[in-house]
Amino acid sequence: MTFEAGESLAARIAGYLSQEIIRGNMRSGERIQEARVVSALDVSRGSVREALLLLEKCHLVTILPRRGAFVTELNEVRVRSIYDLYVTLLTMLATLLAQNWSDETARTLNDKAAMAEKLAAEQDPYRFIEAGFAVMDCALQLAGNEYLLTIMQDMQPALYRTSALAIRFSPQEAGFAGHFISGLIAAAAAGNEDTIRKLVREYGSHQCDLVLRALHNHSTQS
Amino acid sequence: MTFEAGESLAARIAGYLSQEIIRGNMRSGERIQEARVVSALDVSRGSVREALLLLEKCHLVTILPRRGAFVTELNEVRVRSIYDLYVTLLTMLATLLAQNWSDETARTLNDKAAMAEKLAAEQDPYRFIEAGFAVMDCALQLAGNEYLLTIMQDMQPALYRTSALAIRFSPQEAGFAGHFISGLIAAAAAGNEDTIRKLVREYGSHQCDLVLRALHNHSTQS
Repeated sequence: MTFEAGESLAARIAGYLSQEIIRGNMRSGERIQEARVVSALDVSRGSVREALLLLEKCHLVTILPRRGAFVTELNEVRVRSIYDLYVTLLTMLATLLAQNWSDETARTLNDKAAMAEKLAAEQDPYRFIEAGFAVMDCALQLAGNEYLLTIMQDMQPALYRTSALAIRFSPQEAGFAGHFISGLIAAAAAGNEDTIRKLVREYGSHQCDLVLRALHNHSTQS
Repeated sequence: MTFEAGESLAARIAGYLSQEIIRGNMRSGERIQEARVVSALDVSRGSVREALLLLEKCHLVTILPRRGAFVTELNEVRVRSIYDLYVTLLTMLATLLAQNWSDETARTLNDKAAMAEKLAAEQDPYRFIEAGFAVMDCALQLAGNEYLLTIMQDMQPALYRTSALAIRFSPQEAGFAGHFISGLIAAAAAGNEDTIRKLVREYGSHQCDLVLRALHNHSTQS
């Protein structure tokens, strides 16, 4: 997770709150009561505010002047926006790897992907998603574009939230996603850019639809 | 410019330093002496440190533990990385606009583009580049993808630096870039996604080469 890098108190509070949002314990649109976080975690108001600013940058929290902080509402426009961008960037990443494929790339990525596929078979969606991000981080290091690396790592909390929602709604999505990761690595290894584009587009559109169905389901239930 | 949004002292210091870097007054790889900034601007050491962290996020400054802050070195890998990403994101942006083209889009963008073309004819590269970013900001608002908006605005300081270098090295680049903006808007208006991809790729590769030639020229002169 992105939050681990900064070891400050604010970063740790942000890590805690992001897990609450990702796991759905804090709901879309819910107001985040600073005072409650202060007393629950026994930390200062200043560090909670700093944590909320970090979460705003990751698009998990929306801060409204004079109204306070809210869990960013997931709606159709936002979900489609996240997946449009993810498809674009992931296609770029896999294409960069394909153009500079090496034995080291193959070895490193296949090891991480095998771990993700193994976790996909188990029942913990969060560990599986984190293993998927470990593959992504590894691919980003290998691709050598530091700007792409920053951007994709910054997107991870928002993607973590949507993909966790998809897997809670439809548990077989973890297996599907694990299979996608291995397929994408194989396409990059084969240097097949058309297949990369097609696989990423299909995966993004499939998971986006699932998230939208999950949201629709929630809203008709409440 | 990105820095104007935050009105804090640190943001204003960052704005000042970013202009020094963009205009080449502070050189690639140069050490930034905190004490000198503190006394030149008559501000606290804390706000200078905060400003340097903001600039690190924009990739203008590199902070090395126990060694201090340096103007991020522009080298071939970094320049190619910036333009690869810029080509990818700008293609996405223009394609999104093409898919939702309206009379309002045409009117708003053409007004801003005319202003940029006018400034391209004058001799101030910085005002021209800012006018180009104004077209981009406007397009980002119209495209309605808030994640893409954040990412492309965060890239602007690094792009400002490279495109200013290109125009200082080859002043006719401003006219070329102004022409590109209008051509890209026309391609989006016509809904021609192949032309969008081709125009953006050619423009990115042309400007990237120019920046690399400028860097090579500097290094062989010094």
